[in-house]
Amino acid sequence: MASRAFDTDTSGIEFFYDPRSIAIIGASRNPRKPGGRPLVALQKRGYSGSVFPVNPQYDEVAGLVCYPTIVDVPGDVDMAIVSVPASSVLDVLEQCGEKGVKAVVLFSAGFAEVGAEGEALQRRMGEIASANDFRILGPNCLGLMNIGNSVMASFAHIVDLEPVPGSLGLVTQSGAFGAMIYAEANAARVGCSSFASVGNEADTEFSDFVAYLLEDPATEVIGGYLEGARDGGKLRRVAERALERGKPIVMLKVGRTPSGARAASSHTGSLAGDDQIYDAFFRQFGIVRIEALSELTAFAIVHGGRRSFRGKRVAILSGSGGYGVMVADKCESLGLIVPELSEATREKLQRFLPDFGSSRNPIDLTAQAAVIPHMLENCFRTLVEDEDIDIILAHAIFHEPNAMKIAQEIVKIYESTSKAIVIMTPVRADFGPEADHIALLRTARVPVLSDGLGAATAVARLAWYQEKVAQAGSRERDSRPLATASAPDVAAALRGSDGLSEHRSKRILESYGIPITREALATSGDAAVRLARELGYPVALKVQSAAIAHKTEAGGIRLQLTSDDEVRAAYAEILANVERAAPDAEVEGVLVQEMLEGGVEVILGATRDPVFGHAIMFGLGGIFVEVLRDVSFRIAPLTRDDAREMVSEVKGHRVLECVRGRPPVDADAIVDAILAVSRLVTDHREDISELDINPLVVFPKGAKAADALIRS
Amino acid sequence: MASRAFDTDTSGIEFFYDPRSIAIIGASRNPRKPGGRPLVALQKRGYSGSVFPVNPQYDEVAGLVCYPTIVDVPGDVDMAIVSVPASSVLDVLEQCGEKGVKAVVLFSAGFAEVGAEGEALQRRMGEIASANDFRILGPNCLGLMNIGNSVMASFAHIVDLEPVPGSLGLVTQSGAFGAMIYAEANAARVGCSSFASVGNEADTEFSDFVAYLLEDPATEVIGGYLEGARDGGKLRRVAERALERGKPIVMLKVGRTPSGARAASSHTGSLAGDDQIYDAFFRQFGIVRIEALSELTAFAIVHGGRRSFRGKRVAILSGSGGYGVMVADKCESLGLIVPELSEATREKLQRFLPDFGSSRNPIDLTAQAAVIPHMLENCFRTLVEDEDIDIILAHAIFHEPNAMKIAQEIVKIYESTSKAIVIMTPVRADFGPEADHIALLRTARVPVLSDGLGAATAVARLAWYQEKVAQAGSRERDSRPLATASAPDVAAALRGSDGLSEHRSKRILESYGIPITREALATSGDAAVRLARELGYPVALKVQSAAIAHKTEAGGIRLQLTSDDEVRAAYAEILANVERAAPDAEVEGVLVQEMLEGGVEVILGATRDPVFGHAIMFGLGGIFVEVLRDVSFRIAPLTRDDAREMVSEVKGHRVLECVRGRPPVDADAIVDAILAVSRLVTDHREDISELDINPLVVFPKGAKAADALIRS
Repeated sequence: MASRAFDTDTSGIEFFYDPRSIAIIGASRNPRKPGGRPLVALQKRGYSGSVFPVNPQYDEVAGLVCYPTIVDVPGDVDMAIVSVPASSVLDVLEQCGEKGVKAVVLFSAGFAEVGAEGEALQRRMGEIASANDFRILGPNCLGLMNIGNSVMASFAHIVDLEPVPGSLGLVTQSGAFGAMIYAEANAARVGCSSFASVGNEADTEFSDFVAYLLEDPATEVIGGYLEGARDGGKLRRVAERALERGKPIVMLKVGRTPSGARAASSHTGSLAGDDQIYDAFFRQFGIVRIEALSELTAFAIVHGGRRSFRGKRVAILSGSGGYGVMVADKCESLGLIVPELSEATREKLQRFLPDFGSSRNPIDLTAQAAVIPHMLENCFRTLVEDEDIDIILAHAIFHEPNAMKIAQEIVKIYESTSKAIVIMTPVRADFGPEADHIALLRTARVPVLSDGLGAATAVARLAWYQEKVAQAGSRERDSRPLATASAPDVAAALRGSDGLSEHRSKRILESYGIPITREALATSGDAAVRLARELGYPVALKVQSAAIAHKTEAGGIRLQLTSDDEVRAAYAEILANVERAAPDAEVEGVLVQEMLEGGVEVILGATRDPVFGHAIMFGLGGIFVEVLRDVSFRIAPLTRDDAREMVSEVKGHRVLECVRGRPPVDADAIVDAILAVSRLVTDHREDISELDINPLVVFPKGAKAADALIRS
Repeated sequence: MASRAFDTDTSGIEFFYDPRSIAIIGASRNPRKPGGRPLVALQKRGYSGSVFPVNPQYDEVAGLVCYPTIVDVPGDVDMAIVSVPASSVLDVLEQCGEKGVKAVVLFSAGFAEVGAEGEALQRRMGEIASANDFRILGPNCLGLMNIGNSVMASFAHIVDLEPVPGSLGLVTQSGAFGAMIYAEANAARVGCSSFASVGNEADTEFSDFVAYLLEDPATEVIGGYLEGARDGGKLRRVAERALERGKPIVMLKVGRTPSGARAASSHTGSLAGDDQIYDAFFRQFGIVRIEALSELTAFAIVHGGRRSFRGKRVAILSGSGGYGVMVADKCESLGLIVPELSEATREKLQRFLPDFGSSRNPIDLTAQAAVIPHMLENCFRTLVEDEDIDIILAHAIFHEPNAMKIAQEIVKIYESTSKAIVIMTPVRADFGPEADHIALLRTARVPVLSDGLGAATAVARLAWYQEKVAQAGSRERDSRPLATASAPDVAAALRGSDGLSEHRSKRILESYGIPITREALATSGDAAVRLARELGYPVALKVQSAAIAHKTEAGGIRLQLTSDDEVRAAYAEILANVERAAPDAEVEGVLVQEMLEGGVEVILGATRDPVFGHAIMFGLGGIFVEVLRDVSFRIAPLTRDDAREMVSEVKGHRVLECVRGRPPVDADAIVDAILAVSRLVTDHREDISELDINPLVVFPKGAKAADALIRS
């Protein structure tokens, strides 16, 4: 990854976040109107650049000279906020071009979202922007705010809120939802550095603003609301860059409910729902996917503690045994470890705990923690000193008169260690004044959260993210070289046909280093018998035709043939069946193939996703795929880590280990085959639309593709 | 169920909730001490009965005459609150007996929770209570509050909170956690009718207080925090009664993480973790299990709307498309239905929506909903009139100056319909003053929740609960009579042995109406051959011995034998293998059994749980159980509905339907077999500890037990 240049184009985006002057075209005297609200907010928050209202109806708005058109404005204008009827937008954009504007924030609606005519207008906008070398945010967006320099280029109601200082940068494809996220974060005292609502993405898109925030020193966490990426490749490059920078992207993407399967003739294609692909993409590139708004603020709070986790071992301190167990359950369900404590640590803890407390993890301090001086502090200290604990989650009870004293103890501990500590205790999530002890903790950057389950979730996600960052750092080193493609005819074979027969598909796989069954093509019964003898009985016979994707249904397969007579009979029978089932199919011949004994069947595949390109699939054979749809995806090209994760991610992965006394199968052989598929579809991205290896039979040593299908 | 009398003993519990007089033994002048806090709270809240401080150190406490012992108190004392050192507790209890006290709330700690000596003291307490005809709550508890009559018999900090009016009755096995739940509910303006912390349950237990609340008119929802039921049978009767009464019990039970598998020789036993059994119990008896504190308040709020759902079809209205999709995803993941709307409804909606809104469910009103008059009202009206919608989840945006107007519109709609409506909009969850529009909605009983995902979850849980209530009402009618046991020797066969051989186990199953394979026992090679001929080839041979639970491992099984010679050889081989593997095993003979062709393998079983009695298990064969542990449990005796749910609940249940062109298997045959197992273990509850039918082979018509094991 380190070798790939960061080629995402963010040129021009800086004028949205840091314009030296702003014109408001369609300026209004009504502070509730889109043309009025930003004007008021810019003034109220003290934007230091020049502000120029533009509206032919007025000479003056909000105490400023108002100009009839932007061309009339004296001096340079970096940003134009445009709030005019859809019908005037193109003219206004031309004027912006004439004036040399760099960035247009286009509030106006009525474009691609309302139909074909609007779409055409929107395309025209992009052309005007390109021709005039400016960028457009929108149309149909709520605009942008950059809190640090008071660029309040938005008409969302959130511009009226008193900003909370903070470093969460928001980019959203839904204005309304984005504004809700901003408001909820502020209520939880997670301040935002900036907010960008990208609207219809006529010119700039979601990824451009995320890319900019990666380099923005005021932003430590990027929160995104995504409905669909316009350019999956660009989002991938941005995500890779984010991992390099170690700046987390936390993403809310809705739409888990499948909106109907796609038409696909491969297994892989039919299993690749949009959400599965996005989910795989997020996992692969370290984007933290969340399910609820509150998870973003919780993540930002825990991340704000600025601690690297050395591992995933969590100690839980709680004033109630039950609460501790509840949090422990959540931790373990999310992949954190809540280990038994060492005897030494337990003995130390017991010295501080009341006799009805518990020194077993989760540690039950009992309600006495709020009363007995230094008890919480002493227990904290013990856990900080325990080398086998990486993260401390503490449920603290702050009752008067001890609340401040306990908070001070916690701060002292926090500042004395580099371990991660998270405090769980009720915190107000509105704009009211906060308790003194909470303020003290927050000022010292101690993460404090109301919701214990939310705290556990945020810690688990951050631990996962930190692992992803570490993995990204060592990706290059980890990838072994792949077998080089030695088949110059791959592209030729694929071109000009809808798909390839099993035999031809397997030849291509073989050229990419994937072992296949021993087999040969027969075009007569006699030839089939001869080949069967050469291979050794038992054998299988399978009709070969690019037109027959489902050979079994066409009666084109006979298995476990043990004699010359059986082979001869099967050959004739298959041809007769196929003649009936698919009279027009061009038959290449009948494949004579060795029968594989033992092994575990898995499925590998690839499908071309319209957003992200080829997605690679892995699944276990039989009911795991057919009944449980238990498969994993990653976006090609893959690293070895990606392939390994695909294998370990399926729910039934234990099947690959020892089951019923069978030795474990060769997981490396699966990983090698996955990587070979990734290489193949990457080399031939234009030619291959779908690929199935179903099954790949995996043995204690090695694997063989027993059937395959490639479609162009 | 209706025929079963409600035999849970709640006699005496009423004196905890409604005492006419209260003595506080160990009364303190310090309002922060356990002996001081309730005294202050009783006075502050205006408890109308007599209050008697008892403490030999004082003549007067809090302006009341203080007595040296409870015996010195003039007049009757219904309740004694006891806060004295552990060493004095037994004496004090004897005095309470002498005085004729009815209910003792025992705060004191230092009993079963600290070791064997404390346990002995605790047993003694129970004896004193029985002998003197009073009941004890505790010891080691936070006590009890009944808000309606100001019985503040608790020293938890929550007695100091200004009570919020409400009808949530809390019963908790953890005082500290219970107090957290109470405080969080109050902060969310979900008032509690009462609070009971049951502590060590020396005399009364969790179920007693839940049982009382079932009959308490002030309580509409019961919230429980449970660590483990002392008496599973009692909890079951209480839960059944709750379903009859239609009063929901919402339960938080932690401890999902397995604490180590039990020693068990059956499959079923090894799969039956504590949490699986509790979870099954909750599902079976309509107890709403929650994962987080916030779910209890959300449930109470939605339940407080007092609407019966006619179905599970949800329409979602939202001011942001993305938010609507997020809520829709959650609804569908929890079993609610978010249907396409009819053309008629969509046309009506389109009249009210802006042209960039969406009339598809979830319906996107856009942010204009906060601005355009009557838009929300009109859309609501349209959905209320749509017969295909049962529940309306509406995300409402309240911005000034329209907030009150919109709230009034919602109330008008709500009062005009009996459909369920839930509003999602930010609500304060602390004790601060609430916005006028929220207060208006709440007063009209319109459920209002901040968290859209929480709202969807609460609606889904209430829909599930209402279905359970309806199902309970029709349980009797639904149960078909079972085959009567015709084998008088079942008990005899089971007694005096650790377990039964397959053959003997199957004979018992057969007597309960479970079809078994055709088979007979051979004690010589010649007999085996004769039996094989009678059954018809192919056959299986299996060694029969109560001492050999795992026949395959002992080399005691030969399958697919097709000739006399094979049978004769297999017979000899099996005996030789078993002689080597288990020389001391008493061998009954070798079972000659038909081979079953086709069919789907499932597993049925039963295991005796120490809390709930026999749990019945169902699972699909092979990897579903071995790798995925995909099984379902219910507590015997079962209804037909229970058995049906067990079958549909496993993740792989689609295997029973059409797979790969195979016809669906006979699900009724599985249900019959499950019910027969339930009947068998219920009839012989003392004799059977574990039972496995592994596999039961299920065909398109009928099923047969192919192997079985019963252990006593």
